[in-house]
Amino acid sequence: MILVNGARKSHIDITDRGFQYGDGLFETLEVKAGHPVFLKRHLERLNSGCQRLSIPFPGFEILSVETIQLCANQSLAVLKIIITRGSGGRGYRQPDDIQATRVLSLHPYPDYPESFREQGIVSRFCTSRLGLNPGLAGIKHLNRLEQIMARAEWNDPDIQEGLMLDVNGHVIEGTMTNLFYIKDNCLYTSILSHSGVSGILRSLVMKIAEDCAIPVIEHLFDKYELLTANEVFVCNSIIGIWPVRQIENTRFCVGQITRNLQLQLRGLIKTELNNEH
Amino acid sequence: MILVNGARKSHIDITDRGFQYGDGLFETLEVKAGHPVFLKRHLERLNSGCQRLSIPFPGFEILSVETIQLCANQSLAVLKIIITRGSGGRGYRQPDDIQATRVLSLHPYPDYPESFREQGIVSRFCTSRLGLNPGLAGIKHLNRLEQIMARAEWNDPDIQEGLMLDVNGHVIEGTMTNLFYIKDNCLYTSILSHSGVSGILRSLVMKIAEDCAIPVIEHLFDKYELLTANEVFVCNSIIGIWPVRQIENTRFCVGQITRNLQLQLRGLIKTELNNEH
Repeated sequence: MILVNGARKSHIDITDRGFQYGDGLFETLEVKAGHPVFLKRHLERLNSGCQRLSIPFPGFEILSVETIQLCANQSLAVLKIIITRGSGGRGYRQPDDIQATRVLSLHPYPDYPESFREQGIVSRFCTSRLGLNPGLAGIKHLNRLEQIMARAEWNDPDIQEGLMLDVNGHVIEGTMTNLFYIKDNCLYTSILSHSGVSGILRSLVMKIAEDCAIPVIEHLFDKYELLTANEVFVCNSIIGIWPVRQIENTRFCVGQITRNLQLQLRGLIKTELNNEH
Repeated sequence: MILVNGARKSHIDITDRGFQYGDGLFETLEVKAGHPVFLKRHLERLNSGCQRLSIPFPGFEILSVETIQLCANQSLAVLKIIITRGSGGRGYRQPDDIQATRVLSLHPYPDYPESFREQGIVSRFCTSRLGLNPGLAGIKHLNRLEQIMARAEWNDPDIQEGLMLDVNGHVIEGTMTNLFYIKDNCLYTSILSHSGVSGILRSLVMKIAEDCAIPVIEHLFDKYELLTANEVFVCNSIIGIWPVRQIENTRFCVGQITRNLQLQLRGLIKTELNNEH
């Protein structure tokens, strides 16, 4: 089911700048027992992304109401929220009066086997690189050709995620996930000031780690640094935390810190769902 | 008027990857006396862009037929051709069976005053930077947030174009144009291996210059190099060649080489239109 500006529809105007230029941004949420998980955090990120792109935010109230309406009776699903700069404006110049378009759509929850979460996944390095752009870095915007080109590099169903480097050779994230590694009991992840998507799960994982007194360090690191880690995992709002058991020829154990973060995250989701009931 | 896969329509499926991810590319052509100018060159670029993005090219025959059908009776207009990877595919992964979407749309020709072509335009440097990505550089793809952010930097109607630098400080192009400068009777333009759009007019200007025995040099240059040029101009398929008479506080004369290139270009368009008749 799809809602476009509150109405049931399956299409969008050709003139919409989301279609013309990828001029917009999006969120992907897990829907569990009728509830969009971490909705408030997702809407807050959408709001801040809209501010950075100067797209008028449709408002927490209307997005919450429509989201809850769409998610009712969904036991397990994926909700996608797209906001675009709407129609109009000749060329790249935005119209003086922007009427943002909002699209909410439900999708089946992907049938990932439980083993991905328990035993971990296999990953590879992509040759497609992430460009550097401080103005757009962090935002979950609709310009996703870099990820599409990276994801097109492999068809092997035994590889679940591709890791992307920036043009300077720093490992930044997965094609659809944020990346963490653990070394000497510290949790490391990339700085996202020049590329990458600042994920909701990423910020939650960092918060959980800090609450558990695990030092969290954001920095720039290369392949070698990653491959000599004690534990590695990827995360996003749909998969939660997946341990990485192998990157190309290097194997990793699913360690205690990753297990603990998975446990804490599950608790957090449970608490949120209970509070909403 | 808009044709979507050959049928008159004004909308596109929400599931289209052009809307979901900016997963596609486009061309913008001038339509003159019923004829799409430099159609063959535009379709060739579209074909090579499709190849680079692994999108199946819809074919020269069908695109030519639909273009000519749409342009008939248009004395002066703009034609936009969009090709996307079509619908489907979960997330960034492309579907195994890609059915490209083609959208052809007509737009009014912008009412630029003749003075832009004759006396030149005023330009500024944008603070928004172009990211570096060799895999996408040169392609006129649908990921255009960088240009939109740059174009949003000014509202002053006396400024006609913004010049964009890459993250390393090299001047690359205008928000909607390619950029050239002349120094000591040589023609210079930026290398587009890491960012920028490889324009049809850009390649034509370079060809005309070479035919006139003007040395053409593609290289990376900074603001200072540009501001100490003898002549500066920008170009694209809609505006042709616009001399730049001012960049911020630096003034330029509309020089003989720019005038000659404009003249040659006009001749080339005339010849093409005559040959088609």
